[in-house]
Amino acid sequence: MRIVITGAAGFLGSHLCDHLLADGHEVIGMDNFITGSPDNIAHLANNEKFSFYKRDVSNYIFVPGKVDAILHFASPASPNPQSKSGYFNLPIQTMKAGALGTHNCLGIARVHSAKFLLASTSEIYGDPEVHPQEESYPGNVDPIGTRAVYDEAKRFAESLTMAYHRFHNVDTRIVRIFNTYGPRLDLEDGRALPNMIKQALLGEPLTVYGDGSQTRSFCYVDDLVDGIIKLLYSDEHYPVNIGNPNEMSILQFAETINKVTGNTAGITYMDARSARDPQRRRPDITRAKNILNWEPKVSLEEGLRRSIPYFKQKLGIA
Amino acid sequence: MRIVITGAAGFLGSHLCDHLLADGHEVIGMDNFITGSPDNIAHLANNEKFSFYKRDVSNYIFVPGKVDAILHFASPASPNPQSKSGYFNLPIQTMKAGALGTHNCLGIARVHSAKFLLASTSEIYGDPEVHPQEESYPGNVDPIGTRAVYDEAKRFAESLTMAYHRFHNVDTRIVRIFNTYGPRLDLEDGRALPNMIKQALLGEPLTVYGDGSQTRSFCYVDDLVDGIIKLLYSDEHYPVNIGNPNEMSILQFAETINKVTGNTAGITYMDARSARDPQRRRPDITRAKNILNWEPKVSLEEGLRRSIPYFKQKLGIA
Repeated sequence: MRIVITGAAGFLGSHLCDHLLADGHEVIGMDNFITGSPDNIAHLANNEKFSFYKRDVSNYIFVPGKVDAILHFASPASPNPQSKSGYFNLPIQTMKAGALGTHNCLGIARVHSAKFLLASTSEIYGDPEVHPQEESYPGNVDPIGTRAVYDEAKRFAESLTMAYHRFHNVDTRIVRIFNTYGPRLDLEDGRALPNMIKQALLGEPLTVYGDGSQTRSFCYVDDLVDGIIKLLYSDEHYPVNIGNPNEMSILQFAETINKVTGNTAGITYMDARSARDPQRRRPDITRAKNILNWEPKVSLEEGLRRSIPYFKQKLGIA
Repeated sequence: MRIVITGAAGFLGSHLCDHLLADGHEVIGMDNFITGSPDNIAHLANNEKFSFYKRDVSNYIFVPGKVDAILHFASPASPNPQSKSGYFNLPIQTMKAGALGTHNCLGIARVHSAKFLLASTSEIYGDPEVHPQEESYPGNVDPIGTRAVYDEAKRFAESLTMAYHRFHNVDTRIVRIFNTYGPRLDLEDGRALPNMIKQALLGEPLTVYGDGSQTRSFCYVDDLVDGIIKLLYSDEHYPVNIGNPNEMSILQFAETINKVTGNTAGITYMDARSARDPQRRRPDITRAKNILNWEPKVSLEEGLRRSIPYFKQKLGIA
């Protein structure tokens, strides 16, 4: 297939490029570099099956030649209020990527009779009142909350995708992506796992808010991309959760990170009220198992081992 | 003030034009007539303070001269699956009016340092699990449901409005409008009240689904517009419910309609499963009372009496 990926220079977009190229496809990457980085696709510069256009998908995109599939991964995604590339500091761009960007991509999919795959998110569930989250859970999002710029943009994008599927018969897919880690993840992303990895590699004590009993689940990026590609190859039009349902306490994460990195600086406990990322979210992946025959395979220890060389390089550690 | 109203030829938009002109403002109406009707503004043709431009706010709008306020009322709004102008049959246009249309209006408000007022809706609460609905209730909307084209478009519009307020300091207002009736309401709108009014005026028995104990609350249009204008004149940036909290059973509505119209054909009970509009919704108007000193004043009987001449004319009844 000849596949367009928006947000191709982002964390997930760049891994998608790698895996789809490895599967023999031709890949056309697009990115405006507001949150993505040229570093993430620099290794593809001499790949004859890869081409790249610097474009803002919210304005207008033109793709020369025939397109078989378009994957819309362009969006700020970091919830870190301090991050310049997080959605708190790019609220309008985030909403435009979800609405205008999705609209532009669906237009291309319609004109080319191409597949369209939307990168949606567990954030559409908001602050969930049920655990784990099934795809049928309608979510708990306050439309006027400060996080809504991301959550409602993705909810809108899902609704528009289903409208194009139902009304214009566009061959659509929707993946709801849960927390993911791996090489090319921005260490300033603001979430607990990258924060602690960075601290461990710098030999600092890991910051744990409260008693560390609050939980997270993180999926290794190769597992995640494998699930997304299986969804692309499937015929499923309704949303599918892709993520790791293995819920662990923050304390367990911290201990595993210290063990794998050989960090001996231990753990510092901080007042729970300073935590930025309080939600508990865990995917119910029954649909992914049944429809795609997919489930994550990489353990946290193995995923950390595969990621550490990248993070060391980024931090300038030999 | 010099005020732009999108959707000016619609049910609510046209009443807003009337009331704002009566308040001494200059009004610039815009509509693409997909769901609005030139009949609704024909009486303003010779009003020197009113001008009109046929425009699709989702594409691009240009307003000559200075703008002091822009009120975004353009959107399909009928939930009737049989109606050509309902949102089930205009899903993409509905989503574009909410996202691209709101974005264009906010851009104008920002450039002109003008007030912006968004017509939001009780539909952002979806199929609510609490009654009555306060503005803090985050709602129960399935983003991939068929009604989501309207609900998520309005939720997105609210989020974008708050983003422009917080990030660009635009002077915004958000009104969440509940069920409304009055002259210029489309009798094919698909909801229980207009259906029954039409039947009563044609001398037919009124259709009641189930035993008629299910409830509705309807606000007379003059009350509603009064609340919206009070919100426009206020300094309130967070959403305000405007609607009539007087909940009545469908049977009470049917009996009142038959009484006011003098219809003697009675009531026909139909299988509840055929009903199209099953939700129960009732506004909590505490905020409107406290902030705007507003509450509805027109009783159902009085509102019906004021509406009937219009409906008779539309139905060609002397």
